[in-house]
Amino acid sequence: MRFTRETISVEKAVQMLLAATAHPLPQEEISLYEAHGRVMARLLQADSDMPPFDRSPLDGYAVRAEDTVHASVEHPVWLNVIETIAAGQVPSKQVLPNTAIRIMTGAQMPEGADAVVMFEQTENPGEISERVGVKRAMKAGENISRRGEEILQGTQVIERGERINGGVMALLAAFGYVRIPVVRRPRVGLLITGNELLPPEEPLRPGQIRNSNGPMLAGMIADAGGVPLLFPPLSDHPGVAKEALDQLVDQVDLFVTTGGVSVGDFDGIAAMTDDDDVQLLFNRVAMRPGSPTTALMYRNKPLCGLSGNPGACFLGFELFVRPLLEQMMGQTKVLRHSVRATLGSSCEKPCPYPRYLRGRLQVENMQLVAYPDKNDKAGNLTTLKNSECFIIIPAGGRGRSEGEEVEVILHAMPRFGGES
Amino acid sequence: MRFTRETISVEKAVQMLLAATAHPLPQEEISLYEAHGRVMARLLQADSDMPPFDRSPLDGYAVRAEDTVHASVEHPVWLNVIETIAAGQVPSKQVLPNTAIRIMTGAQMPEGADAVVMFEQTENPGEISERVGVKRAMKAGENISRRGEEILQGTQVIERGERINGGVMALLAAFGYVRIPVVRRPRVGLLITGNELLPPEEPLRPGQIRNSNGPMLAGMIADAGGVPLLFPPLSDHPGVAKEALDQLVDQVDLFVTTGGVSVGDFDGIAAMTDDDDVQLLFNRVAMRPGSPTTALMYRNKPLCGLSGNPGACFLGFELFVRPLLEQMMGQTKVLRHSVRATLGSSCEKPCPYPRYLRGRLQVENMQLVAYPDKNDKAGNLTTLKNSECFIIIPAGGRGRSEGEEVEVILHAMPRFGGES
Repeated sequence: MRFTRETISVEKAVQMLLAATAHPLPQEEISLYEAHGRVMARLLQADSDMPPFDRSPLDGYAVRAEDTVHASVEHPVWLNVIETIAAGQVPSKQVLPNTAIRIMTGAQMPEGADAVVMFEQTENPGEISERVGVKRAMKAGENISRRGEEILQGTQVIERGERINGGVMALLAAFGYVRIPVVRRPRVGLLITGNELLPPEEPLRPGQIRNSNGPMLAGMIADAGGVPLLFPPLSDHPGVAKEALDQLVDQVDLFVTTGGVSVGDFDGIAAMTDDDDVQLLFNRVAMRPGSPTTALMYRNKPLCGLSGNPGACFLGFELFVRPLLEQMMGQTKVLRHSVRATLGSSCEKPCPYPRYLRGRLQVENMQLVAYPDKNDKAGNLTTLKNSECFIIIPAGGRGRSEGEEVEVILHAMPRFGGES
Repeated sequence: MRFTRETISVEKAVQMLLAATAHPLPQEEISLYEAHGRVMARLLQADSDMPPFDRSPLDGYAVRAEDTVHASVEHPVWLNVIETIAAGQVPSKQVLPNTAIRIMTGAQMPEGADAVVMFEQTENPGEISERVGVKRAMKAGENISRRGEEILQGTQVIERGERINGGVMALLAAFGYVRIPVVRRPRVGLLITGNELLPPEEPLRPGQIRNSNGPMLAGMIADAGGVPLLFPPLSDHPGVAKEALDQLVDQVDLFVTTGGVSVGDFDGIAAMTDDDDVQLLFNRVAMRPGSPTTALMYRNKPLCGLSGNPGACFLGFELFVRPLLEQMMGQTKVLRHSVRATLGSSCEKPCPYPRYLRGRLQVENMQLVAYPDKNDKAGNLTTLKNSECFIIIPAGGRGRSEGEEVEVILHAMPRFGGES
C-alpha cells in the first residue's frame, strides 16, 4: 500500500467522500436570535400574505384618484381631511368623494381610497389641517402596496439546507417563526499528529516546531459551522492515532487529522488503512500540494486525513472537509463552483498533477484576473491568511503563462484589489 | 428641518460618519482558540525564523550531492545508511563521504548533507536497510527547506486591524501567541421604532406587521463582529426614542435605529434632531432606497438611523453601519471597493438619486456580469437573503440598459451562478 496507491482526481475524491456520508445530522430547535450562521433543517412557508393588508408605502394622503383628475401645481384640488392614520392604526372612516385621509408609511389603506398622494405633492404638508391641496392628478392604484404583492400565504420562503443570514432572519421573524429547526452542528474530532509538534504555548526546542495546523483548522471548522474538538498533538508512534480514534469515535461526527498520510516510516494514519475497522476511500489525489490526502471511514465515521504541510492542509480543508461539513448540515449544493479567469502572472513549473495555487482575484476592464500569491511554497504560512481563491494550473510539462485562461475556485470573499 | 433637508452623496455621508467616530474601542486579551473572527488590536512579529532550522521537505535520504554525481536509474550509487531521523528528532551523526541518513518530512537536516533524495528515487525505499541505492544525481541544496526561508525572526507577520481567520490563527500558533490582543466587540443598541410592529412571537393583528428588521440587523451585526442588544419595538410616541437612548447610552458603543427618519407625523428619530443632546451629521442621502437615512451623535455616541423599509434598512446597514463597526474594531480599510461590471438586465426606471439594486454576480466569458434581483421592490423581504451585491444605477432619467457598464459593490461571498 505504502508506495502503490491508486491516484484519483479531486472531483472523484470529493464525490466518494460525500457519497460515503450522505445523511445530514439530526435537527434541533433554537431561538431565532441565536440562529445566525446555522442551517435550516426544513422548509418554512409564509404564514400570511406579505404585506398582510393594503398599505401606504409613503407619508401622504389617501384619496380617490378620480377626485384629483384636474389637480396641478398651479391649481391644486382641495379635499377635506377626515382622519389621520398612523402606522399600526386601523382606519375608522371611509374616503368619500372630495375627502382624504392623512396616512403614514406602513399604515393600512382606508376603504374608498385608491391612491396615495405623497406629502411633497400637496400644499403645506407639515401642517395637520382640515383641508389638503393636492397638486398632482393621481392614477387609480398609485402608491398602494397591495396585500400579498410581495409574498402570498403558503409560499415556500425558506428552503431546507439554507444557511441562515440576516435576510433569512428577517423572513423568519416576519412570519412568526421564533423557534427555528436547524441541523445540529457537526462535532469535529481534530487530531494533529507529528513528533515534531509542540503545543503553541511552549518554547521552541531543537528539531521541533509549534502546532499551527490545529488552531488553523479549529478556526476554519468554526467558520464552516462545525464545533472543533482540538486535542494536544499526538506522537507518530504506531497505534497512538488509533487509540485516540477509539476513545473519541462515539463523541464526534467526523475526524480531521493532519500528518501521517505520506510514505514516511512513522506515518500512522497511512499505516492504519489496513485495519479491519477501516474502510479506505482514497489515499492519493491528483493535486499539488497534498497528493497523499487520505479519506476513510473509521467505524462508520468519516475521517479526512490531511497532509501536515500547512498549505496542503489548508487546501485539503477547503476542497474536502468544508463540503463534507456542509453536507452533514443538510446543505444541498456543497460543491464549489469554479469560474474561468485570466491568469495574472505566469506559473511555468511543470507538475505531474494539477497544481492549486493560492491567490486573489482582480477585476480589470471588467475581466476577472487571478493572481497567484508570490511566495506560494506549499508550506508557506504567511500567504494563507490573504488567500481568496485557488488557481488551478493543469498537469503537464509547461504550466500556464500570464494571460492564459485558468479555472479558479473561490474560497473567501474577494476584495477585488481593495484592502478591506 | 422636516421638508428642508440637505442631500449629500453616499460617499460623503460615509466619510462624515467615520470621521465623527475615529477612535477604535479598547483592547482585551482572549485565548487563541476563541480568536476566530475577532480583530487584532496590535501588530505581532515572528518570534523565530520559519522554519527554525534547515529541514527536509520530504521523506528520503540526506546525502552529499557530490557523492551522487554518477547516479542514474540504471546505475544507482550505493551509500551506507548510518542513522534514521524522524520528525522532531535531532540528528546525532554527520553525513560523511559515501554515507546517507534516512530522514523524514520535517526533520532537521544533519551536518554534512547538502541535499535530500526522495524515497521514490532510491532502490527499495520501504525497507530500512544498511545501504541505499540512489538513482538520481542531486544538486547541492536540492530538497532542503532553509532556516528562515519563509519568515525571518522579527518580521511583522500580522497587522493591527487584521480580521483573524484560519490563516492568521496558524501564524499566531506558529509564533507562540496564545493570549491574543483583540479589539473589544462593539456593543450595538438596536432600537426598532414603529407602532405597527409586533414582536415576532405574536400573532398578526389588523394594521400591524411583525418586526423583521430587528432580527435581521441582529444577524448582520453578529456577522460583522458586533454584539447586538435588541430591545422590543418602540412606539412612535415623541420622546419614547429619546428616553430609550438615555437609558442605554452608557451601555453601548453605538446605536442603530430603524424607522422614524422620514417626514411622517410620528417620525421620532427625525423629530429628535433639533435636541441639544444631538449633533446631526446628515439626514438625507442621495440613494434609493433609503434617502432619509440619518446619522447623528447622541451624547458622543454615534447613531445610525436607518429607514424602516427592510430593503433600505439592509442597504443602509451595509453602506454605513458595517464600515462603522469595522472602524470601531480597528480595521484600517473599511470602505467597500466597487468594481465595474456589465449590467445583465436592464433597469430603465428614472430616479433622481443613484439607485442601489440588490443582485448577483456571474462570470460569462471571463467577464463580470451583474444581474439585479427581479423582484427588487425596496421593501421586498424575499430577495434580501440571496443578495450578493449592490448594483449602482446612476441618477437620471434613463437608468441603464442590459450590456452597459455599472459600478457594483460586493457585500457577500459571490456564488458566481453556483447554488451553494
